[in-house]
Amino acid sequence: MVVNNKVETLAFDLEAGHGPGAKAVADSGARQQQQRQAAPAGMVQVELHKVSAPEQRTTARALGQRLAEIFFPDDPLHQFKNQSLARKLVLALQYFFPIFHWGSNYSLRLLRSDAVAGLTIASLAIPQGISYAKLANLPPIIGLYSSFVPPLIYALLGSSRDLAVGPVSIASLVMGSMLREAVAPEQQPILYLQLAFTATFFAGVFQASLGFLRLGFIVDFLSKATLTGFMGGAAVIVSLQQLKGLLGIVHFTTHMGFVDVMASVVRRHSEWQWQTIVMGVAFLAILLGTRQISARNPRLFWVSAAAPLTSVIASTVISYLCRGHGISIIGDLPRGVNPPSMNMLVFSGSYVALAVKTGIMTGILSLTEGIAVGRTFASINNYNVDGNKEMMAIGVMNMAGSCASCYVTTGSFSRSAVNYSAGCRTAVSNIVMASAVLVTLLFLMPLFHYTPNVILSAIIITAVAGLIDVRGAAKLWKVDKLDFCACVSAFLGVLLVSVQVGLSIAVGISLFKILLQVTRPNTVVMGLVPGTQSYRSMAQYREAVRVPPFLVVGVESAIYFANSTYLVERIMRYLREEEERAAKANLCGVRCIVLDMSAVTAIDTSGLDALAEMKRVLDKRGIDLVLANPVGSVTERMYNSVVGDTFGSDRIFFSVAEAVAAAPYKAQP
Amino acid sequence: MVVNNKVETLAFDLEAGHGPGAKAVADSGARQQQQRQAAPAGMVQVELHKVSAPEQRTTARALGQRLAEIFFPDDPLHQFKNQSLARKLVLALQYFFPIFHWGSNYSLRLLRSDAVAGLTIASLAIPQGISYAKLANLPPIIGLYSSFVPPLIYALLGSSRDLAVGPVSIASLVMGSMLREAVAPEQQPILYLQLAFTATFFAGVFQASLGFLRLGFIVDFLSKATLTGFMGGAAVIVSLQQLKGLLGIVHFTTHMGFVDVMASVVRRHSEWQWQTIVMGVAFLAILLGTRQISARNPRLFWVSAAAPLTSVIASTVISYLCRGHGISIIGDLPRGVNPPSMNMLVFSGSYVALAVKTGIMTGILSLTEGIAVGRTFASINNYNVDGNKEMMAIGVMNMAGSCASCYVTTGSFSRSAVNYSAGCRTAVSNIVMASAVLVTLLFLMPLFHYTPNVILSAIIITAVAGLIDVRGAAKLWKVDKLDFCACVSAFLGVLLVSVQVGLSIAVGISLFKILLQVTRPNTVVMGLVPGTQSYRSMAQYREAVRVPPFLVVGVESAIYFANSTYLVERIMRYLREEEERAAKANLCGVRCIVLDMSAVTAIDTSGLDALAEMKRVLDKRGIDLVLANPVGSVTERMYNSVVGDTFGSDRIFFSVAEAVAAAPYKAQP
Repeated sequence: MVVNNKVETLAFDLEAGHGPGAKAVADSGARQQQQRQAAPAGMVQVELHKVSAPEQRTTARALGQRLAEIFFPDDPLHQFKNQSLARKLVLALQYFFPIFHWGSNYSLRLLRSDAVAGLTIASLAIPQGISYAKLANLPPIIGLYSSFVPPLIYALLGSSRDLAVGPVSIASLVMGSMLREAVAPEQQPILYLQLAFTATFFAGVFQASLGFLRLGFIVDFLSKATLTGFMGGAAVIVSLQQLKGLLGIVHFTTHMGFVDVMASVVRRHSEWQWQTIVMGVAFLAILLGTRQISARNPRLFWVSAAAPLTSVIASTVISYLCRGHGISIIGDLPRGVNPPSMNMLVFSGSYVALAVKTGIMTGILSLTEGIAVGRTFASINNYNVDGNKEMMAIGVMNMAGSCASCYVTTGSFSRSAVNYSAGCRTAVSNIVMASAVLVTLLFLMPLFHYTPNVILSAIIITAVAGLIDVRGAAKLWKVDKLDFCACVSAFLGVLLVSVQVGLSIAVGISLFKILLQVTRPNTVVMGLVPGTQSYRSMAQYREAVRVPPFLVVGVESAIYFANSTYLVERIMRYLREEEERAAKANLCGVRCIVLDMSAVTAIDTSGLDALAEMKRVLDKRGIDLVLANPVGSVTERMYNSVVGDTFGSDRIFFSVAEAVAAAPYKAQP
Repeated sequence: MVVNNKVETLAFDLEAGHGPGAKAVADSGARQQQQRQAAPAGMVQVELHKVSAPEQRTTARALGQRLAEIFFPDDPLHQFKNQSLARKLVLALQYFFPIFHWGSNYSLRLLRSDAVAGLTIASLAIPQGISYAKLANLPPIIGLYSSFVPPLIYALLGSSRDLAVGPVSIASLVMGSMLREAVAPEQQPILYLQLAFTATFFAGVFQASLGFLRLGFIVDFLSKATLTGFMGGAAVIVSLQQLKGLLGIVHFTTHMGFVDVMASVVRRHSEWQWQTIVMGVAFLAILLGTRQISARNPRLFWVSAAAPLTSVIASTVISYLCRGHGISIIGDLPRGVNPPSMNMLVFSGSYVALAVKTGIMTGILSLTEGIAVGRTFASINNYNVDGNKEMMAIGVMNMAGSCASCYVTTGSFSRSAVNYSAGCRTAVSNIVMASAVLVTLLFLMPLFHYTPNVILSAIIITAVAGLIDVRGAAKLWKVDKLDFCACVSAFLGVLLVSVQVGLSIAVGISLFKILLQVTRPNTVVMGLVPGTQSYRSMAQYREAVRVPPFLVVGVESAIYFANSTYLVERIMRYLREEEERAAKANLCGVRCIVLDMSAVTAIDTSGLDALAEMKRVLDKRGIDLVLANPVGSVTERMYNSVVGDTFGSDRIFFSVAEAVAAAPYKAQP
């Protein structure tokens, strides 16, 4: 782009700067430039653009900017700029308690919408709360407690308008399976309960500190692909567990693995109970059917939303009428609001480590779900959710919950969707829901006495069925096979080994993929795209042509300790292959390697050493090594280190085209 | 590059394709191209280049190529291509046993060089072997055994000509400190020895499998910066441990931490022994002095190479003459070659986990040193060392060693340097060294009876002093402050807490740096560089100018699950800032965001979703989102997924300049 010449001529006839058509251009404008004799004799001057380095900054300033980029990329305080002190105080209050933000504009019209939505999700939350508590091996009442206090706290602190807060299936399942490994809930119910509350407390502490330290990006490490696999596997495991309730089996395995559960189901076929099976299958069909109706016609969302509570009522009536026929029922539930549970938190003894581990696991899983749900609906409704602030809200909610007989809660996918469909406008719908749960806790508990356990199993299966995302997995297969492998591995890990193993596989694969990306970055041989002065990957642009005796290599990654050795070896291999090609075709060999650094986003000391080393080796073989278009941070580092001296500014070019044009030998495309 | 216009005009007067000076160009050449009406009316056509996708490959082929890139980037079998079967067999033999490669050309002249080098390193290896074994809390004789068998095996399998194989300080220190935590070598010497051999065996298995699975790149994860800090800290720790020997203290702490050791030294001042101190300081001064001489004048390398053995002999004579004056001596050493130790390997019981852990730790450390040494000298002497093959050689050597009473060995930095200086030509120098050790083992052991322990301490201090690389640390500070922090953290971790903690910090920081790079990638606002059609970072090129109503943003990283949320948020912030700027200056706002994808090296499903999501949000605000210059794999993925449909090929451009030129509104620089 520098040589002022007809573009076509330049591109195809790449003796740019040497051929008869080329001439030097005195450039207009105030830009910095560098004039350099391209070849010793008989050549005209090529005008080259200087490669700038970014402005010099002091160490403290550079570090400060770097840290600000890491921890405050979204500049959360920008609204505080240029405001009066009083206004800043109001803004701060609104920042920490979003309720003050939307509360001042709250109206009766909004309340009507929120009340409808709140009652709708309450009708879901009550049966689901009871069911999910059972999934975590906890007394059913804990599920209702957890649907009362946390939503109230979230309404104060949370910034999502659509989140419906309460217990969720995945976190319940993981907590249940992790705690059961150490403590049998049937034999030591008090200890188990203590551990559950303690784990909830640590989950809250973990979540709040992630938010406070602005480390929210840790949640992003669970890639969507592995999450799809993990959730699918967990959903299957949860559904299999429900076979106990659906078939009316009394003595069921406490293991979670696919093989154990199926073996147990077959071995205990003498315990199968036809009454329970009939009732279970019937209600499961109804629940799944209503889900289908709502899925096909979103305006009928209330059909599937009302189905669980209706089923509970209907089945309770049936169960009451048929009492004495052996259908297992929930039994007595205590009446009254959440008792305090501060005294049940244990911070010493051999089980603390388990509680911490369980807390972190369930904490990160519930955070992943809550943040994802919040972001999804925020984006649909076009408002912003600050991930780090949400984490603090969810964390505080769980810490408070653990002191009020609640276990881990977060924003639920399914109930938030219903909340949204039912027309919620603000977090007041959570307050309405909590009030409905309060009424239930105070007055309606005896009504659940005859509720059959089988209906809870049916509700759980219906809820988790939505987590099996076959279409998502198919899309992964189409777009990215490695992602698909990760998804399947996580799925099989959960299904065949254990939930923890599945989760570890998911995280492990996600990390391995990152590391692989880092250690084995892409490199491409580039050629000139005809009709342009741009060099592009020859694998991508098949019309691109080589320009011997130049070998143009593009490196598509930061160069640093984890890949510098690899990159040097890879470039040397390109060189070897190119020379073999040239020898076969009886052409002259490579005289100059041009490294296109456009995509080299950073370089560290190992990377600089590797470049210097490569230059030394190539020098011995009489081959030039020049760099094209290094980005700001790389340029800065090059000029700051000895490598800059090794290369010298006359080996660093604005673009590949200028590097080729400036060389003292002719390109032969 | 497309509009056939004067470059300067085009650059400054960016109504390219719309202004009166612009006209469409019928392009020559057989390239694929795409013609498109840039604006509905009154505009001339802009000729655009099609963004190609790489050739379609079958899944199996794509996966195969990907795996080949990951595991065989150096194409190790390229020399086998187009060869006869017999030749292939010979090549395979030479591949696995490099001795057959250089052995056939071996001559008397080479032998003379190798013999001199071999004897020189033997004079170093014997005292160092004894000293390092003590560092690992092992009987001194194990150090000599380890200098006999492994070098012979390496001579057969290794591909480095300069490596001098034997025990090394860092691996000895780490093995000693890890095993001592579980087993006291003074109280359970047999168990301790069993664990040491077992750990060596596992180290070998680990090393060989890394090489065999071609996972050698794992070694690259210890960044140079953290290694500098770790080695420096370990060297200080080792030197401090030698205060026991230097001061003649009998009851010394078994802890390694700086504080413990200094406290022990002060508390036990009554045990300080002036005879030992005088001898120790004198010989330490001599050894360090000779090191200085050799460092200043490389031709005098033999001065420092001969010093340890000379010191041992001299001090033994002095110690013999002054016997009875309380100078602690080595005492009786068994005579004879390595006894087999196969029966001492333990593969069951509670200590196996410790042995595996120690094996992996020492294995990876010794591998790091061995590979780095091998590569350094290979590059000086201009030959190639295949990292994965070296790992197999070192691994097999350690596995065999563990069955012949040897502990972990690798290529030593200091002895390899001496080997090189002494003029070694092939691995035969290792054979000569092993022979010298053999003679020592068979006949000379009684001579070491009176060798004082203090001289071993002096030798260790001299050897590890070279690991403290102050100049390297200073260079890190200059080039990369984060690398420097990592270096100092690893140093302090080793010094103040423990070797394992220091190593964990080193690895942790290295990994964290990678993850940080991945989760917080660089993004830049780009401007047009005057006099060109190239868009570059405005922070780097201060002369670059904005082109409202376009906002050109460059993303310098793969877009995937770990950073897609961050990137979208960051780009939205750029948009907000740009609009605030425009509002202040009373200019029109942003109408189009051009994402320069040149440096986006890959994209995964989460990244694709994030792009589609961002487009949806921007569409609502009436802002265009177009992409420029996606690389091959990204283009492929875009076309394969729904996102491709969302964007459509008319929103994906060959370059930023074409994207700007093709828009239906005018750029106003």
